[in-house]
Amino acid sequence: MATEGEINHPYIPRDLKLPGFVPGFLSSSTRLAYFGIPSLMVVSFTWILSGGIHKISKVDRILMCWWILTGLAHIIFEGYFVFSPEFYKVNTPHFLAEVCKNEKLASKGDSRFVARESGVVSVEITMVVLGPACLLAVYAIATKKTYSYILQLALSLGQLYGTAVFFITSTLEGNNIAASAYYFYVYYVFANAWWILIPTMIFIRCWKKICSACQAQEQNKTRRSKTG
Amino acid sequence: MATEGEINHPYIPRDLKLPGFVPGFLSSSTRLAYFGIPSLMVVSFTWILSGGIHKISKVDRILMCWWILTGLAHIIFEGYFVFSPEFYKVNTPHFLAEVCKNEKLASKGDSRFVARESGVVSVEITMVVLGPACLLAVYAIATKKTYSYILQLALSLGQLYGTAVFFITSTLEGNNIAASAYYFYVYYVFANAWWILIPTMIFIRCWKKICSACQAQEQNKTRRSKTG
Repeated sequence: MATEGEINHPYIPRDLKLPGFVPGFLSSSTRLAYFGIPSLMVVSFTWILSGGIHKISKVDRILMCWWILTGLAHIIFEGYFVFSPEFYKVNTPHFLAEVCKNEKLASKGDSRFVARESGVVSVEITMVVLGPACLLAVYAIATKKTYSYILQLALSLGQLYGTAVFFITSTLEGNNIAASAYYFYVYYVFANAWWILIPTMIFIRCWKKICSACQAQEQNKTRRSKTG
Repeated sequence: MATEGEINHPYIPRDLKLPGFVPGFLSSSTRLAYFGIPSLMVVSFTWILSGGIHKISKVDRILMCWWILTGLAHIIFEGYFVFSPEFYKVNTPHFLAEVCKNEKLASKGDSRFVARESGVVSVEITMVVLGPACLLAVYAIATKKTYSYILQLALSLGQLYGTAVFFITSTLEGNNIAASAYYFYVYYVFANAWWILIPTMIFIRCWKKICSACQAQEQNKTRRSKTG
């Protein structure tokens, strides 16, 4: 462990002070396995279980997989990050701390996580709040609740807004946040881009569905007022 | 004008560096008149004009007033702020610069505006983008477009998210941002609270309207599949 004042971490900017920083223990393939295997299991279970729902479309089943995955990610990874400001000092092989030290949710791709910049932490807090609502979306799709589309639209908008604040903030600050060009493009740009792409697609789909429902209601009203 | 290094401004924290800062020229009552009179005119015009729309409810007319007012505020005040990083150096009586030097949109209530913190600037950029969409909401309500509720819901959510990021960020940083308790509560808490209160009310209203439209469509489908 390095003493205070010394640069003892792999992050950019180099003058970032992280007294007590302990490097990770797990290899990147171990981390990938810890992340990938449970994710794959969750998606598989959701896909299989959702197949038993009466008259459900494939798109809705895919959406259930997305919402359960992104919801759990918000709760587990972002929840751990929000409530563990000193994750970079963890000196045992701890999966969540290691993910924060390395992957998307911090640090090599975006050192503002480990530096605990308040803008980034604020966005993460809002994401933790969205987490349980994402699980509610899974339930809403499965049980065909009337609020299903509107909830999905609201959640997607929240994810879009959060990711936009991320990108705009770091652009304003000159994007001096990634340990290398590889980490910048793979962990910061590419990984975050999914939370722009997928929420945008869901937003457009829900917008159209809701508009058509509103239109149908409007036509019914007009018909009734003409016949009544 | 003070030289660099000297503390030459009324903002908190006192060690904030603002070389070239020029105090305001207009009195607070002049600023209030410049702000209040056009606002009142816009609201009055909207209220009167909207009265001529066929079968429009009072709530929708009030909402038209809200969206035109908040839309113009996003475009004019927040637009000026975003594109004028050096507003604090303006050395002529300039209304928008003076508002930024004093009121809500900065500085005595929340010095992060004048300090140009990237989190705050990011939120302001997203608000400028929302501005024209607020004016679209006025048009959508007036012409009873099917996307009216969904647009209002999306806009309210954007405003709520932005205000939440504001409040969470400054709380994380210890709220050391206001020139006095008066400015903190009146300009920071009270003024921003409207952008929590009103969007929340609109959000709930639109949510209910959309749910009932979706429910009606669902019932129609069920009826048709039974009779068909």
